[in-house]
Amino acid sequence: MSASAPRPEKPARPLREEYPHLVPFGTRWMDNDIYGHVNNVTYYSYFDTVANAFMIEHGLDIQGGDVIGVVAESGCHYHAEISFPDQLEVGLRANRLGNRAVTWGLGIFKVGVDEAVAHGHFVHVFVDRETRRPVAIPAELKVALEGIVVDTENGL
Amino acid sequence: MSASAPRPEKPARPLREEYPHLVPFGTRWMDNDIYGHVNNVTYYSYFDTVANAFMIEHGLDIQGGDVIGVVAESGCHYHAEISFPDQLEVGLRANRLGNRAVTWGLGIFKVGVDEAVAHGHFVHVFVDRETRRPVAIPAELKVALEGIVVDTENGL
Amino acid sequence: MSASAPRPEKPARPLREEYPHLVPFGTRWMDNDIYGHVNNVTYYSYFDTVANAFMIEHGLDIQGGDVIGVVAESGCHYHAEISFPDQLEVGLRANRLGNRAVTWGLGIFKVGVDEAVAHGHFVHVFVDRETRRPVAIPAELKVALEGIVVDTENGL
Amino acid sequence: MSASAPRPEKPARPLREEYPHLVPFGTRWMDNDIYGHVNNVTYYSYFDTVANAFMIEHGLDIQGGDVIGVVAESGCHYHAEISFPDQLEVGLRANRLGNRAVTWGLGIFKVGVDEAVAHGHFVHVFVDRETRRPVAIPAELKVALEGIVVDTENGL
Repeated sequence: MSASAPRPEKPARPLREEYPHLVPFGTRWMDNDIYGHVNNVTYYSYFDTVANAFMIEHGLDIQGGDVIGVVAESGCHYHAEISFPDQLEVGLRANRLGNRAVTWGLGIFKVGVDEAVAHGHFVHVFVDRETRRPVAIPAELKVALEGIVVDTENGL
Repeated sequence: MSASAPRPEKPARPLREEYPHLVPFGTRWMDNDIYGHVNNVTYYSYFDTVANAFMIEHGLDIQGGDVIGVVAESGCHYHAEISFPDQLEVGLRANRLGNRAVTWGLGIFKVGVDEAVAHGHFVHVFVDRETRRPVAIPAELKVALEGIVVDTENGL
Repeated sequence: MSASAPRPEKPARPLREEYPHLVPFGTRWMDNDIYGHVNNVTYYSYFDTVANAFMIEHGLDIQGGDVIGVVAESGCHYHAEISFPDQLEVGLRANRLGNRAVTWGLGIFKVGVDEAVAHGHFVHVFVDRETRRPVAIPAELKVALEGIVVDTENGL
Repeated sequence: MSASAPRPEKPARPLREEYPHLVPFGTRWMDNDIYGHVNNVTYYSYFDTVANAFMIEHGLDIQGGDVIGVVAESGCHYHAEISFPDQLEVGLRANRLGNRAVTWGLGIFKVGVDEAVAHGHFVHVFVDRETRRPVAIPAELKVALEGIVVDTENGL
């Protein structure tokens, strides 16, 4: 049974320099769970926030535009604990860039520490807001994404 | 560069019957994001809730016990949209069970639909609350987990 | 200075029977904060969920309807602690009903306990989705609201 | 019946200068709800975060200290809509200061706008972490609170 299968190896902790776009990020009281650290779920909320802010800065209109990004897949590896009121930095890159989809790569860093406390990815597929059918990444955004592509071995 | 690498194949949608433990689950107003569907982050909150409720039913004391579960890794595939006020069912299984860690498998289902709207996994490593060093899964919980192990190809 | 002003009296704990509409409500892992109890903010999320579910059952189309409810004011009194995985019931009533606004009254109850662990209110003003100008409460909803009006001394 | 009672007057929008402690505050993707604006619940999360950060700066040990603050009451008035990715400032003051409790006053501001988009309050009662019985506000924190007391007419 699967119980005896070897666990996959733990991936390396990425460094701050592996992320071309880096933004300061504040924690909130509610990010801490009963165990006194930022809950695993909350990291994905940091991912979502930083990637969407990047897209908005590069022309995406989340309130009324024709194109929206929907998430097909996501994942995260947790390396070290953080807690409110820690001040963080979130690193953003494009691990993989297609015509209709981007795989974001994200790293969470404590201020003053080079190795990520967590890193993850998620895939945005761009679709028409009404029909929800895939469409091309808007041109202005595509150019911006090309500027943050980082070659990773497996897109993760 | 990675931009030209093929995207990994989309995994199949699991069925309700692949999850031995199934619980009803209500959505909340705040689960919907600006695009009118449950936000991708929120699914992980469903995962967390159902796995922890299972552990509490089987003896884990989250308020003051010596052993806590910390998350080492997580991931999710999204197959179809859901929205508040949808009524859901969440399926739980153990994809992989070791002495000090369990990989939970989770499926999110709409009431009356057999195929999952999303499925994912996360790894709980059991540690001492104070030292945060790995410890054995508590005996009562281990037995309960053995009852929901489902053999999956790759632990995901 | 205000430091010497008397604190307002603590209001009484309402009873389950004071709420004509009562629904079961599950807690989530993330509802607990670092102090091991449901965070004060989270109660408002329960309020929002139950009032909106009631409106949707009575014809409000949150995805695309012309009329939406925006919140003008809210408040809550906390009487006793609750924690995930507590099973709750949320009681709903209309404390005050106008032509374009309703003041919801809400009570949070633990299963099997008559006195509320918390109670609060919030005011929904109905507005046009585009112009955000006040409009009349939709007729079907108005009728449903009339059915849950409870006479309270001060609308709270 | 209460339906005919006059609604209370809408309170004035406070100004930034009415808050002695002002901190920058970032919004998150998930703060927006289906109506495209920051959800009413989320403002309380801003309140919680800013008041607790102030207390931690002034000696409160949320991880293991003997004294914790529990919320007895809260309320908010909403004056104008905000949305992610708005950059905000949150103003903090003490509306009322006792020996064992403080009523925080909070104002939410958009960068560059003097009038609050929302303002509210909440009451922290200080209690022993174990017994949950009221205790005196720790001395270092009390001094800091005295520095941000602002005389308001009714403590709100």
